[in-house]
Amino acid sequence: MDNALKAEVLIESLPYICKFQDQKIVIKYGGHAMVDEEAKSWIAKDVVLLRFVGLNPVIIHGGGPEINKAMEKMGKEPEFIHGLRVTDEETLDIVKMVLIGKINGDIVSKLGKYGGKAVGLSGKSGHLISARKKIQYIIKEDEKIEVDLGRVGEVDSINTELIDILLEKKYIPVISPIGIDSQANTYNLNADIAAGDIAGAINAKKLIMITDVDGVMDDINDPSTIYKKLTISQVGEMIDKGIISGGMIPKIEACVNALRKGVDSVHIINGKIPHSVLLEVFTEEGIGTMITRD
Amino acid sequence: MDNALKAEVLIESLPYICKFQDQKIVIKYGGHAMVDEEAKSWIAKDVVLLRFVGLNPVIIHGGGPEINKAMEKMGKEPEFIHGLRVTDEETLDIVKMVLIGKINGDIVSKLGKYGGKAVGLSGKSGHLISARKKIQYIIKEDEKIEVDLGRVGEVDSINTELIDILLEKKYIPVISPIGIDSQANTYNLNADIAAGDIAGAINAKKLIMITDVDGVMDDINDPSTIYKKLTISQVGEMIDKGIISGGMIPKIEACVNALRKGVDSVHIINGKIPHSVLLEVFTEEGIGTMITRD
Amino acid sequence: MDNALKAEVLIESLPYICKFQDQKIVIKYGGHAMVDEEAKSWIAKDVVLLRFVGLNPVIIHGGGPEINKAMEKMGKEPEFIHGLRVTDEETLDIVKMVLIGKINGDIVSKLGKYGGKAVGLSGKSGHLISARKKIQYIIKEDEKIEVDLGRVGEVDSINTELIDILLEKKYIPVISPIGIDSQANTYNLNADIAAGDIAGAINAKKLIMITDVDGVMDDINDPSTIYKKLTISQVGEMIDKGIISGGMIPKIEACVNALRKGVDSVHIINGKIPHSVLLEVFTEEGIGTMITRD
Amino acid sequence: MDNALKAEVLIESLPYICKFQDQKIVIKYGGHAMVDEEAKSWIAKDVVLLRFVGLNPVIIHGGGPEINKAMEKMGKEPEFIHGLRVTDEETLDIVKMVLIGKINGDIVSKLGKYGGKAVGLSGKSGHLISARKKIQYIIKEDEKIEVDLGRVGEVDSINTELIDILLEKKYIPVISPIGIDSQANTYNLNADIAAGDIAGAINAKKLIMITDVDGVMDDINDPSTIYKKLTISQVGEMIDKGIISGGMIPKIEACVNALRKGVDSVHIINGKIPHSVLLEVFTEEGIGTMITRD
Amino acid sequence: MDNALKAEVLIESLPYICKFQDQKIVIKYGGHAMVDEEAKSWIAKDVVLLRFVGLNPVIIHGGGPEINKAMEKMGKEPEFIHGLRVTDEETLDIVKMVLIGKINGDIVSKLGKYGGKAVGLSGKSGHLISARKKIQYIIKEDEKIEVDLGRVGEVDSINTELIDILLEKKYIPVISPIGIDSQANTYNLNADIAAGDIAGAINAKKLIMITDVDGVMDDINDPSTIYKKLTISQVGEMIDKGIISGGMIPKIEACVNALRKGVDSVHIINGKIPHSVLLEVFTEEGIGTMITRD
Amino acid sequence: MDNALKAEVLIESLPYICKFQDQKIVIKYGGHAMVDEEAKSWIAKDVVLLRFVGLNPVIIHGGGPEINKAMEKMGKEPEFIHGLRVTDEETLDIVKMVLIGKINGDIVSKLGKYGGKAVGLSGKSGHLISARKKIQYIIKEDEKIEVDLGRVGEVDSINTELIDILLEKKYIPVISPIGIDSQANTYNLNADIAAGDIAGAINAKKLIMITDVDGVMDDINDPSTIYKKLTISQVGEMIDKGIISGGMIPKIEACVNALRKGVDSVHIINGKIPHSVLLEVFTEEGIGTMITRD
Repeated sequence: MDNALKAEVLIESLPYICKFQDQKIVIKYGGHAMVDEEAKSWIAKDVVLLRFVGLNPVIIHGGGPEINKAMEKMGKEPEFIHGLRVTDEETLDIVKMVLIGKINGDIVSKLGKYGGKAVGLSGKSGHLISARKKIQYIIKEDEKIEVDLGRVGEVDSINTELIDILLEKKYIPVISPIGIDSQANTYNLNADIAAGDIAGAINAKKLIMITDVDGVMDDINDPSTIYKKLTISQVGEMIDKGIISGGMIPKIEACVNALRKGVDSVHIINGKIPHSVLLEVFTEEGIGTMITRD
Repeated sequence: MDNALKAEVLIESLPYICKFQDQKIVIKYGGHAMVDEEAKSWIAKDVVLLRFVGLNPVIIHGGGPEINKAMEKMGKEPEFIHGLRVTDEETLDIVKMVLIGKINGDIVSKLGKYGGKAVGLSGKSGHLISARKKIQYIIKEDEKIEVDLGRVGEVDSINTELIDILLEKKYIPVISPIGIDSQANTYNLNADIAAGDIAGAINAKKLIMITDVDGVMDDINDPSTIYKKLTISQVGEMIDKGIISGGMIPKIEACVNALRKGVDSVHIINGKIPHSVLLEVFTEEGIGTMITRD
Repeated sequence: MDNALKAEVLIESLPYICKFQDQKIVIKYGGHAMVDEEAKSWIAKDVVLLRFVGLNPVIIHGGGPEINKAMEKMGKEPEFIHGLRVTDEETLDIVKMVLIGKINGDIVSKLGKYGGKAVGLSGKSGHLISARKKIQYIIKEDEKIEVDLGRVGEVDSINTELIDILLEKKYIPVISPIGIDSQANTYNLNADIAAGDIAGAINAKKLIMITDVDGVMDDINDPSTIYKKLTISQVGEMIDKGIISGGMIPKIEACVNALRKGVDSVHIINGKIPHSVLLEVFTEEGIGTMITRD
Repeated sequence: MDNALKAEVLIESLPYICKFQDQKIVIKYGGHAMVDEEAKSWIAKDVVLLRFVGLNPVIIHGGGPEINKAMEKMGKEPEFIHGLRVTDEETLDIVKMVLIGKINGDIVSKLGKYGGKAVGLSGKSGHLISARKKIQYIIKEDEKIEVDLGRVGEVDSINTELIDILLEKKYIPVISPIGIDSQANTYNLNADIAAGDIAGAINAKKLIMITDVDGVMDDINDPSTIYKKLTISQVGEMIDKGIISGGMIPKIEACVNALRKGVDSVHIINGKIPHSVLLEVFTEEGIGTMITRD
Repeated sequence: MDNALKAEVLIESLPYICKFQDQKIVIKYGGHAMVDEEAKSWIAKDVVLLRFVGLNPVIIHGGGPEINKAMEKMGKEPEFIHGLRVTDEETLDIVKMVLIGKINGDIVSKLGKYGGKAVGLSGKSGHLISARKKIQYIIKEDEKIEVDLGRVGEVDSINTELIDILLEKKYIPVISPIGIDSQANTYNLNADIAAGDIAGAINAKKLIMITDVDGVMDDINDPSTIYKKLTISQVGEMIDKGIISGGMIPKIEACVNALRKGVDSVHIINGKIPHSVLLEVFTEEGIGTMITRD
Repeated sequence: MDNALKAEVLIESLPYICKFQDQKIVIKYGGHAMVDEEAKSWIAKDVVLLRFVGLNPVIIHGGGPEINKAMEKMGKEPEFIHGLRVTDEETLDIVKMVLIGKINGDIVSKLGKYGGKAVGLSGKSGHLISARKKIQYIIKEDEKIEVDLGRVGEVDSINTELIDILLEKKYIPVISPIGIDSQANTYNLNADIAAGDIAGAINAKKLIMITDVDGVMDDINDPSTIYKKLTISQVGEMIDKGIISGGMIPKIEACVNALRKGVDSVHIINGKIPHSVLLEVFTEEGIGTMITRD
């Protein structure tokens, strides 16, 4: 590549380093985006670079596929209601062991390998995520019925002290979506929602959702139909019209939750595109779909 | 109890609060001492009280019995050489899931229940415990043979920065004995030794080993034969004479390691005695067996 | 004493160390409680221990009996109106010499002997106690007549800067109740009232009145008739009913003054009971009579 | 006075404000210089001005004449050996009451009247002056005999912490020359010597001795015979030759002590000359006699 | 001069050092006052002394006579409209070179010679003086006509950050009256007005205008007719009555501007009187004419 | 440009932002590189971006061509001996007016236009550059003769305080190469040498020499013959062999001076290549010729 091209990229990207200097960026790292070692390395490298140039990345991870695998190994059948994992005590133990004991640790190791100082946390440490049991209803024969999802919770409040302390000392917090209540009961949380809650609580500028799709698209098989920018009201209409549907709906709702909590922009990006995080943060055009309040 | 007695206890104990003010105390919480909920509560309460009155407790925990149980559930037979668990890749995954994903989190929850701000960590977070593969020899038919214990490691160095940051903000670090090398390989560590290494590195005043025995005794069945105070040279002689034997030998060696690393005193106490930690720290006589350099 | 009892006392007392950590405790040390060397040592030791475990004690002392003795030696007859010492210029000189030059110094020495860093102060140092001449009335033949008590003053305002500076550096201020006005005139002050004013001004949690009685009692000769807890409205009624009478009335009024100035609780304790200060601060039941706002 | 003259004085004096900015100046305020209210006001005003323009004055006072007066009132005959007051227990009580309870407080009041923030201290506060019993010998019939001066002490060490804290907050410490030992015994100290010890310990630039004479003079009745500048070796010779004699000898020895402890210059000035302190500090010629190391 | 006189001057002047301690004093150093080397030295010495004793002087200088000389050397005729220099591009270059490149540097050198740490600045450095083109009108045949003065500007806003940083580190800022707009166009400014704007922006206590006249006088040839104190309303009347006229009018308007911006007092003094700055600041009577709000 | 290319540039450049974070970079901006407005803008923009992303650039500028132009306008013939400008008093005035009054201000304005906070300084401000008269010798008829260059100086010492203060507050110092001695005499300095002295004194990582040539080349007309990396010993040999000759010799000597003063690397780059500063700092290959110690 010649110097003129390099200079062009630098002139484009350097102002973003200044713009996001000392700012917090929450990265939701989805279980489905943890596809292969190469993609994991790209993401770890990108996050370490964000930290190196003065941004404050915070990772919240998922891990659905790994949990399923572990459950199957133990002879337990995963069961979902409205996309939420029915979580009995034994399942909760498996969820915690896989999320905290395995996936979280793997991310911390990978970040360390590329020179980052990462700290693995669950929502229990430092009262980080206060949660309560989630009350879920389903519609059955036109009646609204409460179903018991077991140890599935929803966020009550976020205690940002521990995150702030770690960020100030240039650590990268890596958080497993497990919550705790005042009686020390623990809960399995939806990582997308928890990411938005944390992003709002710590005044993050951006929430980046690393998924396995390019973004919100008209035709999921045609990348050229991607929407680069959407607003809350636009995604509302698109859900009404059925353009956004299926599994994308709860993710979009989590994005809207984050924006309502005060995050400036939420980005749905594809973790399988090399260095998609860097491209999102440091280029004018960005990558994936950006959703803003208006 | 009357006022004169209370005054006597206060006059005895308050100077220790001053003496240990802002000092670090490392507590090795052994898997065999995690016997029942009541004993777990005593210990959690005591540690929280240490923190409340201005000391800096740091917990390193074990978990052998729980790991064995989990392995058996998965149909794997635990295997030990010289007291060290032979650890293949699959076993290491189980070790990490049980230690970090389960036991560590349970301790953090319990401390939180009694008002402590605890943070669960493994040796991977913040490059806390750098480790390398342990080379183990056995004597077989008068020949020294190297045996491969798999992913068993020994401590290379301790990075105290993260612990220091957390202690300064009044958090209680709870550490799982997992180490990591520069290639991001992780290792299963002996918790007693790791506790001594950490205690030395952070300049702890005391290392308290919570076990399921009262201390070093002449006759293991007669508590009145306990040794209240021992020195490094005395325990050396006692090992030579066979007074200390069996499973107590590696524990004592871990104590000596801690003393050599600079810890002032190491205490072997019985976690089944109510509030043994408080009694050890705040009474003149203490409890259990104290070992010092001389 | 066995371990279970010790553990019980510790479990009871340690939370108070945390509760009162960095809090200010004003101790009014009455002249009548300075009975013998042993009692003086208990009190000095207790105050030093409060400071050692992180509380901020401040002492204001009295000294009536000693002043009387000095006056008599100089051939002057002490004279009181409504419990206030009539103070001519010569008497004021004696008051200052005894309070500042003798009693204050003795307390400072005693605290130093037990390891405390005490600083003797009068209300003149650092403009600590601004005072003005007290206007006193008596009822004589149904008429309200102003009497001239000479150099008796009442507190105008407290300048807390000097106390704050000394507490921050872990000194124990020992204050003689002498006030000063803007023309540099000095005044003899009632130590009970001054203690309450200072306690209010520095936001003390507690004011402890060390006296020579056990507290407020129905029958002054029967310790079992003591009132453990009283409120402002209760003491009001008790004065009306004559249960509180005589010399106890101005003391109780000084307690109410302190509560009105913002102190959480005032305690009347007996300095002749060994370690009564420690027992008051670090036991659940406390000692003596506690008075609160409601 | 016309502008040219004023400008001349300013040009002369302002550099000294810069030179002594933040520097410590110890002022020994002798009992014989406390002659009348007007002279006391000059001195108080001067010291407050030093503080106002950024210097750090520290006062150590004497009080011999007042102590004698108080002793006589109580029917005790003052007795001196080699210029040192024989001090039995009762005398010590009088000394403390007069110095701390009266003179010190009067100086503090006067400084306060002119806007200074003064704090009265004795050597007991904050372990300021550690002392020990002074062993004194006299020559009687060619034999060296130890005489018991009672509670007369000499300085063991100075703890500067309290002075430093007060100076940093712009207070003027006013210190009575009473020392204390580790058993809490108190001692009557020579104020000249104590002033030099304190000046040395706090790294004072100057020690100013306020006396009732103009300085060292050839003919005590002829002010024109004053020595403006002397060195340690010169005063040694002058003592040998008898030019310095009588009561001036111990004062000069105290000056030499201060110089040996590291003070840059010692000044003997006359407190009866209006504003002699200001003239000493802020004029090129100074006033009185200056003694330096060489 | 005898000691009594010196003491009198000190007693008079020292309180002003305290009063103006850490305060900012803006000094407008007019081009007409830069008469000879001796006068320049007096002023430099005085400013350095202000800084030495703890005040924060800031100099803004003019330079009209030097600019005229430089223009004439280059064959350009200086032209003025309403006292403002018509400034084409070439003239602006000369103005900048003379003010910044010559006069500013000479003042900085002189201050350095007497021990001051001065920093030469123009209004361009650190966005110090934001300016815009000045729109000027003249009355011609009863019609108000806009005239183009070229690159003459007026102050838009002052950015005090750089001045504050330098003052905090005890530097003396020396500022040339050149302003800049957001397009990086530079402007020639009236130094009197700029001085007032800067004095207001940095909350200066005083603005001292060093000129070549003694102050505002009834008869310019009779110094005894000087007005020592004037208020805004008084100077308004004096302009109306013609007592203040000609070139003094814009200077007085600049003074009023400064007072309106919040400066406590403005002083017109004669730079040819030795040490007039010191006399103004440190004597009760001051020197020259003082103008206050009321 | 596609995303893969952008990602590649980012991955290459971001580590340099981290590497040079908070580091000082001295930029010598030569008069011959100030060719046109576009090139001036590139350089200003690049320097502002360095500052934005957390580096600490310091500019030292030259200005030979402009000085020549100004001298000619004033009818003075520029004269050089060994590449040094013979500088009489009048010439020094012109040098100062052009460097400080014109070029320095233009650079400050340009940096301000692109959002930088620049401060123009000469070596006189804050005693930045202490200098002394340069003694120069020439060889004439085999004899070494001292020639008088007038007011040409060489650097005696650098006072970094002012630069450090400004860098800490994120200002960009722009320094004219004028020095001053203790008698306040000013000197014209060689900007290349002064840049190296300043770079060494402030512990700069890099010194970048912006010139009008691509670097050190075998054939000055063939850019492909450029040397990318050279060491001190290599340039020594090249001078001996005549590969480096003429005007390049003193520049190379200035580079060697900087390396000897502790700078890690010196870079000779071409200011006419767009964004050559950015390319030098943020690309692996860099641009121009880099010289290191070895």
